[in-house]
Amino acid sequence: MSTKTTLEWTGGMSFDGVANGHHITLDTDSKWGGQDQGPRPKPLLLLALSGCSGMDTVSLLEKMRVQNYKFKVDIEADSTSDHPITYHTIRMDFRFWGEDIPQDKVVKAVTMSIERYCGAHAMLSRSANIISRIFINDEEVTK
Amino acid sequence: MSTKTTLEWTGGMSFDGVANGHHITLDTDSKWGGQDQGPRPKPLLLLALSGCSGMDTVSLLEKMRVQNYKFKVDIEADSTSDHPITYHTIRMDFRFWGEDIPQDKVVKAVTMSIERYCGAHAMLSRSANIISRIFINDEEVTK
Repeated sequence: MSTKTTLEWTGGMSFDGVANGHHITLDTDSKWGGQDQGPRPKPLLLLALSGCSGMDTVSLLEKMRVQNYKFKVDIEADSTSDHPITYHTIRMDFRFWGEDIPQDKVVKAVTMSIERYCGAHAMLSRSANIISRIFINDEEVTK
Repeated sequence: MSTKTTLEWTGGMSFDGVANGHHITLDTDSKWGGQDQGPRPKPLLLLALSGCSGMDTVSLLEKMRVQNYKFKVDIEADSTSDHPITYHTIRMDFRFWGEDIPQDKVVKAVTMSIERYCGAHAMLSRSANIISRIFINDEEVTK
């Protein structure tokens, strides 16, 4: 299967990207000649990672009949100081809120995603140390 | 330097991602329980790659006083068939249009980006074979 994206320069440092028919504006800040009309490119790597594992997790929990919860994936990534500037460490926090959330199922779903299903995790873990943690109602749980 | 992103589940397979203060909706198609309210997560890896190298290229060409051109970066990526599904090959086409575009400077700018500056290229090339080509007025030029 092949996936196509296009990215068209629209002036300044601004670009119009298209993926799956949806437009995303990319831009940089004024320090680098941009106008902040959209996110920088590299953080999209992090959204791809959190989105990929987030969708896996929701899908797996649905199959395990886990419902009625809130869910976020926060990421904080540390960059190298030399060119090319890459993320050498990525911390992912999977955060769940709700009553009666089954810890074992949540841990299983997140673990299956990051160890088996999430392609973005498999790709980015070749160049970054990805550390993931799970929180239920703001308390970290052990995997 | 650290970079933060957040991604909040908004129901179904839809997520609200935030990077650099800008919101991006991620979703999947109906086949996987989504409503196609935004792009899939993994193609964001490709937009990060084209955006990163696109911004480098425009910035370098500006320093070389190259102006008055149109510019796109098209990507086509091939995926593995087994889980985790990753991109094993990524073809990037840097396409320029305009009169009197200096081929040597365009080749130099693109090459500097992919070999030295673009962090997304450096990261994704650890797991995918990235093949880049340059076109000026729809004719491929050799690097």
